[in-house]
Amino acid sequence: MKVLKTHKTFEGLTQFWSHESQETKTEMKFSTFIPQGKVEGCIIWLSGLTCTEENFITKAGAQKYLAENNLMVIAPDTSPRGLNLPGEHDAYDFGSGAGFYVDATTADYKTNYRMYSYIVNELYGIIQNHFKIAKISIMGHSMGGHGALVIGLRESDKFKSVSAFSPIVNPTQAPWGQKAFQGYLGADQTAWKPYDACELLKIGKKHAHKILIHQGTKDEFLLNGQLLTPNWVETCQKQGQEQEVVFAEDYDHSYYFIATFIEAHIKHHARFLK
Amino acid sequence: MKVLKTHKTFEGLTQFWSHESQETKTEMKFSTFIPQGKVEGCIIWLSGLTCTEENFITKAGAQKYLAENNLMVIAPDTSPRGLNLPGEHDAYDFGSGAGFYVDATTADYKTNYRMYSYIVNELYGIIQNHFKIAKISIMGHSMGGHGALVIGLRESDKFKSVSAFSPIVNPTQAPWGQKAFQGYLGADQTAWKPYDACELLKIGKKHAHKILIHQGTKDEFLLNGQLLTPNWVETCQKQGQEQEVVFAEDYDHSYYFIATFIEAHIKHHARFLK
Repeated sequence: MKVLKTHKTFEGLTQFWSHESQETKTEMKFSTFIPQGKVEGCIIWLSGLTCTEENFITKAGAQKYLAENNLMVIAPDTSPRGLNLPGEHDAYDFGSGAGFYVDATTADYKTNYRMYSYIVNELYGIIQNHFKIAKISIMGHSMGGHGALVIGLRESDKFKSVSAFSPIVNPTQAPWGQKAFQGYLGADQTAWKPYDACELLKIGKKHAHKILIHQGTKDEFLLNGQLLTPNWVETCQKQGQEQEVVFAEDYDHSYYFIATFIEAHIKHHARFLK
Repeated sequence: MKVLKTHKTFEGLTQFWSHESQETKTEMKFSTFIPQGKVEGCIIWLSGLTCTEENFITKAGAQKYLAENNLMVIAPDTSPRGLNLPGEHDAYDFGSGAGFYVDATTADYKTNYRMYSYIVNELYGIIQNHFKIAKISIMGHSMGGHGALVIGLRESDKFKSVSAFSPIVNPTQAPWGQKAFQGYLGADQTAWKPYDACELLKIGKKHAHKILIHQGTKDEFLLNGQLLTPNWVETCQKQGQEQEVVFAEDYDHSYYFIATFIEAHIKHHARFLK
């Protein structure tokens, strides 16, 4: 584990790291913020399409609230890097920068695109063993909101709480999800369902605590059918999953929106991590 | 005046603008944050080397505190763009991205590199006439901290208050300043002095209110002699300029440092703008 950069921030440390990943068989990078003093828990942040480990930690303005709540954050990159797999760099919504938090099974991708196991096992282990933090929660944005919901529902014992900004809640029914799942998991759509938050609810997966979502009403990807937020609300109600979706009037899909509401999410996780 | 992008943020609007500048004879861009409701004043933010109109508004986390204090911010680009003057794009510290807030007099640059007049007259006029805000203050970072101090001392009637992060306080004595002034103002060093905050203090220029500076002690550009902060403190004391320099232990030159202390600066300006 190598520290690439350190910047003192709100009395704590913003840092950039790299390590050799056993899951992806590549060098992986992540950023952290570690507040000064006792750290009571860690939130994993999963970023959206095209992002790296840098977007959240520079743009969300989270450090202030993490410091106030004695919480650490860890924000991994969104895919393996440094490979040159067939089609990997051709589009913004597949391959590099678009790992979709699945363990790929297609021939070209199955060796390296193991982002589900990377987050749930390898990064989780790093938080517990390297950073010595026992209690872990998860949140994310867009593709990373999808990742947070799927991981939170499937691994509900490992993650104390779950939240998302503008998540892709039903990717098997939306163009981004369909394209990615076809490429990473193949044509058999039954293999897609374990990576779809709404489908997981339908087979009885649940998280013990309320799942918080913020969703801007002027989000272009809500309006063009990529996010499908109403499907989440409806399925949660049917299946008895406690949830709160805040529809934030006139907000869009950007980090300006995330910065506006990040304090609410950090406080939400603090309730369960402390 | 064209709006390029709008993002709702903390109930107000983050926006990106372009306009045809009379001073630079180019298209110039700037960003703004305008809080919801009554706006009591505007702070101009001047960015540092290599920055555009985007860095501050995405990374400083200022919107929350601007909204709380009913203040607008406007952050212009750091030089004219779209030209191809001799040497303009050869280095990060001269030409594009490095206007140094001077009115150039050298043959190649004098027509377009008029950033002093652009800020003091044209942008100032836009704030008053387009945005209808009467009370204006100024702050900045590094090269932009230099700009804020120089403009605040020379135009003390126009700017209600002045502050800076990691400013170049004595550019005639530092490599960045010497290179830029040589290129924009020529070899005669007497022409450099009106753009040096310490030199302005020495000829009796003053601002009526305390000038606030935050300076990280692990700032590499403090340590390598570009910023020369002690010269400012000493000259202010000799000349009776009220000042406060907060030496922030272990902080560096980055926007993580700025984000940590931006609330203090916005509150400082709020005292004089309301």
